[in-house]
Amino acid sequence: MDSRNGSVSETPLDAEIESFFDSAPPLKDSAGIIKKLKEFIEYNSTPPGKGSPRRVVCVTSGGTTVPLEQRCVRYIDNFSSGHRGATSTEYFIKAGYAVIFLYRRGTFQPYCQSLPEDPLLECFECSDDSTIQVRQPHTEAVKRAVSDHHAAIAGGHLLKLPFTTIFEYLQILQSIAMSMKDLGSLAVFYLAAAVSDFYVPWKSMAEHKIQSASGPLDMRLVQVPKMLSALKKEWAPMAFCISFKLETDSKILLEKAEMALKKYRMHMVVANELSTRKEEVTVVTGNEKILVCRDKTQADSDVEEPLIELIVGRHSAYVKDSDL
Amino acid sequence: MDSRNGSVSETPLDAEIESFFDSAPPLKDSAGIIKKLKEFIEYNSTPPGKGSPRRVVCVTSGGTTVPLEQRCVRYIDNFSSGHRGATSTEYFIKAGYAVIFLYRRGTFQPYCQSLPEDPLLECFECSDDSTIQVRQPHTEAVKRAVSDHHAAIAGGHLLKLPFTTIFEYLQILQSIAMSMKDLGSLAVFYLAAAVSDFYVPWKSMAEHKIQSASGPLDMRLVQVPKMLSALKKEWAPMAFCISFKLETDSKILLEKAEMALKKYRMHMVVANELSTRKEEVTVVTGNEKILVCRDKTQADSDVEEPLIELIVGRHSAYVKDSDL
Repeated sequence: MDSRNGSVSETPLDAEIESFFDSAPPLKDSAGIIKKLKEFIEYNSTPPGKGSPRRVVCVTSGGTTVPLEQRCVRYIDNFSSGHRGATSTEYFIKAGYAVIFLYRRGTFQPYCQSLPEDPLLECFECSDDSTIQVRQPHTEAVKRAVSDHHAAIAGGHLLKLPFTTIFEYLQILQSIAMSMKDLGSLAVFYLAAAVSDFYVPWKSMAEHKIQSASGPLDMRLVQVPKMLSALKKEWAPMAFCISFKLETDSKILLEKAEMALKKYRMHMVVANELSTRKEEVTVVTGNEKILVCRDKTQADSDVEEPLIELIVGRHSAYVKDSDL
Repeated sequence: MDSRNGSVSETPLDAEIESFFDSAPPLKDSAGIIKKLKEFIEYNSTPPGKGSPRRVVCVTSGGTTVPLEQRCVRYIDNFSSGHRGATSTEYFIKAGYAVIFLYRRGTFQPYCQSLPEDPLLECFECSDDSTIQVRQPHTEAVKRAVSDHHAAIAGGHLLKLPFTTIFEYLQILQSIAMSMKDLGSLAVFYLAAAVSDFYVPWKSMAEHKIQSASGPLDMRLVQVPKMLSALKKEWAPMAFCISFKLETDSKILLEKAEMALKKYRMHMVVANELSTRKEEVTVVTGNEKILVCRDKTQADSDVEEPLIELIVGRHSAYVKDSDL
């Protein structure tokens, strides 16, 4: 069977995925999202004037949540500030890509990294004639946040789609992938989001808030089906795919990254350890392990700059190979 | 035994609380927090000039998290936007109170309610001469957010303390309560935060990220000790205490609120149902159930305005009674 024709064979994995989507709560405004995606991809594939088509990358960012109750009061959250995804988005745009930024609500946004935690309070003041002014040390950061961000959106190079739960994340990711399928090798997936491995199936979930009667609370969570396989096999089989592996234990990190590379047939797996992830990452490919470090001679450098440079280079080679 | 002398008797509850605090990861900058609290309370107890002492309310806001791993990648979160706590803080300050705002990082802040989700992007623009300007429909909201907020902080009437985990929340709450003890009946606790009922004891927690081997994940969470009892009995026994009860099932809501009122000897329990909590709440006291609704004839009214009015009235009566 040709895995590129989009038909679903009846393997256990496909059945698992089907059951995950069937039992998920319906995505709000699913038609609106698909319409936005179509327009965005069309605009960047056939840009006005004489421009050549832009490559499109889907950057996922932030952690997904797993609701424990249907009327959600409690949920399990996978920690991620979204820093990696937001910064990478800036470099992809700079490198000429159009970015679909699939991000967790409330996490870091592109062009806003150098702002303080509470920008509105810390960056602005009310002057005597009661106009709002930017406070001195923050002028450049605020300008960058406002103007670069507006330029990317207005230029049609950045589409932002928010999610909260694992259900929303996977449903939107599927829509994105299927919309990008026709881009073939020009499509990139940069899957930096921290996705839950376990979830409580919607139908077996308590409808109401779990009561704290006396005694401990026992919970059983089941594994989220491995959607990376479906992405590679069915949704967008020609896309260049980069996934991330985060561990707190450096001893098992590279081994787990290699396993993920093979199992899901990724082109690259970015291995990062929780405590050093802002300093360095190791990019694992089929035959290499490339250590990527931030430029420590520069105070405001980051590891995303050399990482995206490496990825763009490899993606270019991949596009070339696919054209042959 | 006089419960007001602060000594800890060896009841099972006390032992549970002791063991919770003993096993919790140490709070960062605990000495700094206590110093800030002391200065804030002293300033408001003996304000400069001829002002009379301000009453002090501790408003807790947002949900706590329960880490599932020591090097925290995953945690259970109790959902709360922090809207109630942030809005209530504004009304308490307006009514002449000093507010210690104990809030979950990233949740709603006082004076920022009428701003859009991403204020920096939506409210500002870069003009032709590259100065940053407020966009027209948002001028008033931004002014309010910046100037009222600054005025409250600069005036010494608002102290903001952030938390993330259940461990941080309860440790800081204890410090606040003990700092407020000497205020006697002038102290108020308005406990709007959504606090986890269950937690994983720090010492029995996995050090590293839980691996997603095949098969389901079974978790055992134990109950968080009932700190409201300790607050009333030991930490600040004369304070006027209001707690909140949130349920998704209206059938059990009032019954649970009454139980909480009696069990923890609260002065008031605010009962709110998830789906209608922005429209109305029921305040349960020893002999009343008072329905408090927002003024539906006004588009921008909220339920916090009449709620805080009711509480301030009851607190005044309580202060008077305590003086007799």
